[in-house]
Amino acid sequence: MAGSSHIFQAPKGTRDFDPPNMALRLHLEKAWRDASIRHGFEQIDGPTFEHLDLYTVKSGEGIVSELFSFKREGGDTDYALRPEFTPTLARMAASKGRSLSLPTRWFAMPDLFRAERPQRGRLREHRQWNVDLLGAPGPDADAEVIAVALTALRTLGLSQSDIRVRISHRGAAAGLLSACGVSDDSMADAFSLVDRREKIPADQFAEQAAAIGLDEAGVRRLDDIASSRIAATNAPGTIAEQHGLPSETVADLEALARELEKRGLLEFCDWDLGIVRGLAYYTGTVWEIHDAAGDFRAIAGGGRYDELVQLFGGPAIPACGFGMGDVVLGLVLQERGLLGDQLSDLLPRPDVFLVSSGTDDAEEHLVPLATSLRELGMHVRHTWKSTRNVGKQLKEASSNRSRFAVILGEELANNTVVAKNLDAGTQVDVELGDLPIWLQRQLAESEAAELQ
Amino acid sequence: MAGSSHIFQAPKGTRDFDPPNMALRLHLEKAWRDASIRHGFEQIDGPTFEHLDLYTVKSGEGIVSELFSFKREGGDTDYALRPEFTPTLARMAASKGRSLSLPTRWFAMPDLFRAERPQRGRLREHRQWNVDLLGAPGPDADAEVIAVALTALRTLGLSQSDIRVRISHRGAAAGLLSACGVSDDSMADAFSLVDRREKIPADQFAEQAAAIGLDEAGVRRLDDIASSRIAATNAPGTIAEQHGLPSETVADLEALARELEKRGLLEFCDWDLGIVRGLAYYTGTVWEIHDAAGDFRAIAGGGRYDELVQLFGGPAIPACGFGMGDVVLGLVLQERGLLGDQLSDLLPRPDVFLVSSGTDDAEEHLVPLATSLRELGMHVRHTWKSTRNVGKQLKEASSNRSRFAVILGEELANNTVVAKNLDAGTQVDVELGDLPIWLQRQLAESEAAELQ
Repeated sequence: MAGSSHIFQAPKGTRDFDPPNMALRLHLEKAWRDASIRHGFEQIDGPTFEHLDLYTVKSGEGIVSELFSFKREGGDTDYALRPEFTPTLARMAASKGRSLSLPTRWFAMPDLFRAERPQRGRLREHRQWNVDLLGAPGPDADAEVIAVALTALRTLGLSQSDIRVRISHRGAAAGLLSACGVSDDSMADAFSLVDRREKIPADQFAEQAAAIGLDEAGVRRLDDIASSRIAATNAPGTIAEQHGLPSETVADLEALARELEKRGLLEFCDWDLGIVRGLAYYTGTVWEIHDAAGDFRAIAGGGRYDELVQLFGGPAIPACGFGMGDVVLGLVLQERGLLGDQLSDLLPRPDVFLVSSGTDDAEEHLVPLATSLRELGMHVRHTWKSTRNVGKQLKEASSNRSRFAVILGEELANNTVVAKNLDAGTQVDVELGDLPIWLQRQLAESEAAELQ
Repeated sequence: MAGSSHIFQAPKGTRDFDPPNMALRLHLEKAWRDASIRHGFEQIDGPTFEHLDLYTVKSGEGIVSELFSFKREGGDTDYALRPEFTPTLARMAASKGRSLSLPTRWFAMPDLFRAERPQRGRLREHRQWNVDLLGAPGPDADAEVIAVALTALRTLGLSQSDIRVRISHRGAAAGLLSACGVSDDSMADAFSLVDRREKIPADQFAEQAAAIGLDEAGVRRLDDIASSRIAATNAPGTIAEQHGLPSETVADLEALARELEKRGLLEFCDWDLGIVRGLAYYTGTVWEIHDAAGDFRAIAGGGRYDELVQLFGGPAIPACGFGMGDVVLGLVLQERGLLGDQLSDLLPRPDVFLVSSGTDDAEEHLVPLATSLRELGMHVRHTWKSTRNVGKQLKEASSNRSRFAVILGEELANNTVVAKNLDAGTQVDVELGDLPIWLQRQLAESEAAELQ
């Protein structure tokens, strides 16, 4: 901006949401919330910042450079903006202890923060949907959280040709990495490295792989495994035979396949041994949702983490869940043409736009009429510009997609107004006293018609 | 919590929102959002943290101790968690410059942060509703934002005997403080001091008053003025004569009274010259909403700040608005008995709870039936416990306030289920294939009945 200094910009990697961009975020949040509630999940939230220790105690000090951390002026407690929601969830579950009624289904929509350099699809602040099912150890729970994720994505218009759930298992990954020469001690580093495989240059990958005991043959084998993706409508055994997976892992995936099938979701899924998830706390199934072409980062990632609550001082609670951010999802919806012609079409439509012809009578009626219609719950607008040109006001009514326009004009002398249905292009005279009930009926009919 | 160290607690002055407490926050947010949209305001948001300069450049370095400020590890840019939303709003308006279509109506619901010692009704993190009308200089705009605030509070059940809008004017405050011996240079400090009058000990107040040029007589006069509150159904002249307000200020308040009257809100309002608002940027009308008994901090505070956008490098845009936090409002609603018997009554009610009798047939139908009902948009639950005791499952259905329970039992052999209306205490057999449409009809009827 000419003339304004840096202080008038949003911080790098963060976003200003003007009404159309906010409407997009609310559109995603509505799909997330509705899918969660349909499946009986209940919303929670925690603080935007936590004690720094909550993140370092389990992940080590290495994570500090990825965090925004701070103290109060003159205080000695270290805090950090939350980089993910799962530690907060585990802390909340641990603090409720045995009073927590299990199984419990929770979801949240926190803002999360990363101090890294911003990249496409990865900002310093983003909103993330988190869904967790605590206290259920079976594959029905894993399938259920996948169903919640897919319900939201399908509501947003994505089909099985747009998105794929890529499923693997930590047991498979550990077994295979072990066979490739990774020691148990290096396993967590290996998960993190394999997870970043497609995001770092090949030479850097080879160098880091060597450091954790993977030789060239091991890396080739790993690449081979990572590219062995097959549709989940094939039995997991198909992939198991090829790579010699442990039999318990195959049994877990077979049980998951049955649960996905019950939910009609197997057609959305692939078995993909290249999925490991970078975070250390996964213990069973791991999965990511990607755009089918693989052009973007993961839309969502999740899995089973049976030891997490215990890590934070709580009882042993089996758990599974996922996170889905707003940034990549928005890019994928845009690329698939699922956001309409313009974001402003996602804004709430006014029910009624009141137009004043500017006579004393009209001016006197304008605000009291708006007030009484709003008391009935209607979304009512009138111009805030000084113009009393009826044509200009009707243009404003159309441009913000009002359903009806009501013109206060000469007819007020007969206690009558002109009501225009702006979608249908029709208009009728309505007696002023009948207007509220007339509008309520018309709006109910429009709504019923739109739902069909 | 026995055995857990400090790291497993939420930071002091922040909150964990379990489902019932989250339901309360969502209850407030829904009232806020609905009132905003009814009045044609559009939602925006900005980053959770801003460049520190955004707050210090206009308020001075003194504010730093009230902020949570930080840098990236190894970075040299100072950031701060947003303590209020208005600077972000002004920055956004300034950055849009002349492309901003005026007047513009915006609202936001940010999390805000204060590094102070937490007090009753004042936490380190809270959620605040912000409503702003930019580009309209008249008293209709001031009355409109007051109407938005009162619409939300009335929706939440508060009446004119529960809450009062206390209105004053910066012109009145400045004139009166000047008459009490405050110089123009000390005016901003005086506003801040008068605003904190009821929150600090009398001796401390007297000491700070002396420092800005108020002598004992001046303080007495100030106390006298601050306690001169009268119902706004009295002409502002009543209070003006008593204290010698400037005539432009009286004219402004008279015009505001007419606009409030048009909206049917004068009965909610008082003229109260004790209201000044602590922040330096107000230029005209200032107001706060308090519980009628005055037992709590302000529920909301706002006014006119015509120079704000310009302060942040934008064009001159007249503006008015307010902020309303979730903490005091929650306390007032609780104290007035407006939150029901328990917060969990605010949780979304399940439409259907599916009960399995545990037969193979029932188990096989359970998940596919839940899936198909959810695809129709219903909120469907079933137990996640291992029990297949029908009585226990029905108890779970009641305890989470399900509208209907559907029992999958022996009748499945005849393709029939038992559907119970848990509100009415009635039950009928329904053919399995007819269940979705039967439930849709019943739920639509329940909803219609509840709306009446």
